Amino acid sequence: MFGQMLENVRRKKPLIQSMTNVVTINDCANVLIAAGASPYMSDCAEEAYDSQKVADGLEINIGSIETPKVEAYIAGGKAANKLGHPVVLDPVGAGVTKLRDETLKKLFNEVKISVVRGNLSEIKSLATGSANTGGVDAQAGDSMNDENIEDVVKLAKNLAKKTGAVIVITGETDVVANSDKAYIIKNGDELMSKITGSGCQLSALTAAYAAANKENMTEAVAACVAGFGLCGELAKTRMKELDGNASYRTYLIDAVYNLTAEQLERGAKYEIC
Amino acid sequence: MFGQMLENVRRKKPLIQSMTNVVTINDCANVLIAAGASPYMSDCAEEAYDSQKVADGLEINIGSIETPKVEAYIAGGKAANKLGHPVVLDPVGAGVTKLRDETLKKLFNEVKISVVRGNLSEIKSLATGSANTGGVDAQAGDSMNDENIEDVVKLAKNLAKKTGAVIVITGETDVVANSDKAYIIKNGDELMSKITGSGCQLSALTAAYAAANKENMTEAVAACVAGFGLCGELAKTRMKELDGNASYRTYLIDAVYNLTAEQLERGAKYEIC
Amino acid sequence: MFGQMLENVRRKKPLIQSMTNVVTINDCANVLIAAGASPYMSDCAEEAYDSQKVADGLEINIGSIETPKVEAYIAGGKAANKLGHPVVLDPVGAGVTKLRDETLKKLFNEVKISVVRGNLSEIKSLATGSANTGGVDAQAGDSMNDENIEDVVKLAKNLAKKTGAVIVITGETDVVANSDKAYIIKNGDELMSKITGSGCQLSALTAAYAAANKENMTEAVAACVAGFGLCGELAKTRMKELDGNASYRTYLIDAVYNLTAEQLERGAKYEIC
Repeated sequence: MFGQMLENVRRKKPLIQSMTNVVTINDCANVLIAAGASPYMSDCAEEAYDSQKVADGLEINIGSIETPKVEAYIAGGKAANKLGHPVVLDPVGAGVTKLRDETLKKLFNEVKISVVRGNLSEIKSLATGSANTGGVDAQAGDSMNDENIEDVVKLAKNLAKKTGAVIVITGETDVVANSDKAYIIKNGDELMSKITGSGCQLSALTAAYAAANKENMTEAVAACVAGFGLCGELAKTRMKELDGNASYRTYLIDAVYNLTAEQLERGAKYEIC
Repeated sequence: MFGQMLENVRRKKPLIQSMTNVVTINDCANVLIAAGASPYMSDCAEEAYDSQKVADGLEINIGSIETPKVEAYIAGGKAANKLGHPVVLDPVGAGVTKLRDETLKKLFNEVKISVVRGNLSEIKSLATGSANTGGVDAQAGDSMNDENIEDVVKLAKNLAKKTGAVIVITGETDVVANSDKAYIIKNGDELMSKITGSGCQLSALTAAYAAANKENMTEAVAACVAGFGLCGELAKTRMKELDGNASYRTYLIDAVYNLTAEQLERGAKYEIC
Repeated sequence: MFGQMLENVRRKKPLIQSMTNVVTINDCANVLIAAGASPYMSDCAEEAYDSQKVADGLEINIGSIETPKVEAYIAGGKAANKLGHPVVLDPVGAGVTKLRDETLKKLFNEVKISVVRGNLSEIKSLATGSANTGGVDAQAGDSMNDENIEDVVKLAKNLAKKTGAVIVITGETDVVANSDKAYIIKNGDELMSKITGSGCQLSALTAAYAAANKENMTEAVAACVAGFGLCGELAKTRMKELDGNASYRTYLIDAVYNLTAEQLERGAKYEIC
């Protein structure tokens, strides 16, 4: 089934409006193209409705938050809701600053969010209001492993229930959950954390998968997460002696460009619980 | 003659102020350097005149339009006009949102534009006021082929006459036209549409060619378009098995860096009508 | 000793808040990761204190100056001062526009700057108020060579005395100076000037070295400058026939990723005066 989700993206070529940060915006646009989607990077409040009208989905990534952007996030989210387009939220830096926390609260109050994708520190902060002192990366104590995976799944399912959104927590292991079903995904490579914005790229891709598979969103998001993790593994196999994280950045998007449904079916490593 | 245009850029090293979008701004700066020009990426209204004073040309790309940027575009354009510097306009998303259309109208009213570079959907929208539902890429129906090329040339010449600008329409075939002469250019590769911002890069380069060849602008722009298309072809020849659009992005700028006048003379494929 | 400075960055993993330009922000984040630091790219005044609270250092790069950003630079700088974090300033385009000059004046008045890193045109402008007509690159007359190196060292030491900051001037030769000691560094490669933002990357790295070596800042900054120059040399050795500046961009960050303390000790070329 994961392969079908990928093929739906390539066939439907969803136009994804991405309100994302200025650090990784180029990678996010290129990775959307690599997956077969069409990127439209606009985060201007004044044209939010007009923009969503030609799009199939919206991604909001608050990485480069600025006071005037908040208005754009809300306007874009409302437009997407009105038009029946999925809204993917990447709560970058949740728990780090008051501005981010207040913005996230506002977003959940005024916009129906379809999918949230963050690291464990960010999702914990959303769920429990805990502070986050790790900047935009997960805090040292917030890795996922066999010992805490059950708690993490419970956290994700509860937040899914509370918000109505599919919750994605990424780290060494990834969790994709709605209120009663969770995928535990073991794809990925540690090098993905050595480039800026692999999480942002995944959030952008998630919007493409959600938009092209609206009737089956949880599974589509799981397919996206497993697929991107698999691309991380494939990119790793290309690393040569003098290569570093900059080469890996190129290989990762290349892998998304070349990923086939068959590879995804064969390479996805997950269990459902 | 095209080779001479390229050599003028390398010799004169024009300093191009680029008011461009945040998606492709890094590529635009690097491709300007690759061509031999010097990039200065500033889009702040308050310093627009001071910035143009040290520059040789201006490029305005409205891709990341935001309300405060509009003022910067106008201030920059007026400064360039006053100083006799060419102004290249990339009307990203023309016809998609009201904000973009009003901004473009304002720009044509208040600034003398030297060159406009867009895809067919955007140029059609500028010329006829038609809506554009393809986001920032050309709509599906707006490809250029042998059947409609005559109409496209007519459209470009008419818009050139109306605006006084050289009109560049890029797609599978490219057209460069002033009011009485058009180049139909057949360089390029389909992979150029698989990276974000190859059009933006071309618009930035166009400003460099225009600034270094002010006395012969139409031909200089045609040389630029043919040359960049040729670089797209050369980049394609480097693609290896696991490469995707991210590698292609690198190869494309590399090709601009290495392109010689001789290669351009030999490889340019065009006719004049 | 330089090797130890590098290892301190890898061991302490300083979290660097970078208020940088939108042109090179992705490269700056990736080069920070490559060196072992953790990037946090936020330049919003409203969250400046909250952001510095989780960080170990601040970098301010005024490349993409806009009126509202000035407030963020000041708020960030004051927060860093209050928390005892080093502040690295990259005065991009000093002397080019009035807005930049006034902003720099304000910064020096209201914030204690730990390190300034610029090209000779920019540092001259800071020190003497001279105009700068070379855009964001050094003016043609402002290269450093054996003939003027003594004057440049004097300029740097005087500015260090006046401001209390370590002064870094980069070009063909690099100078790192406090009020009574200067390193003259001969690492680097001319290709570094063929990509946008190698200077910006160095400024970001400088903040990481300063934050991880607070007790020994001048030497740490010298280690950083020599190390990055060495990476420029190592990147050059990877250049193949069709490679251009885009490939070089990748190789440069890769080299930072792979640089070892031993390589740095062996490869650093400098004298102290």
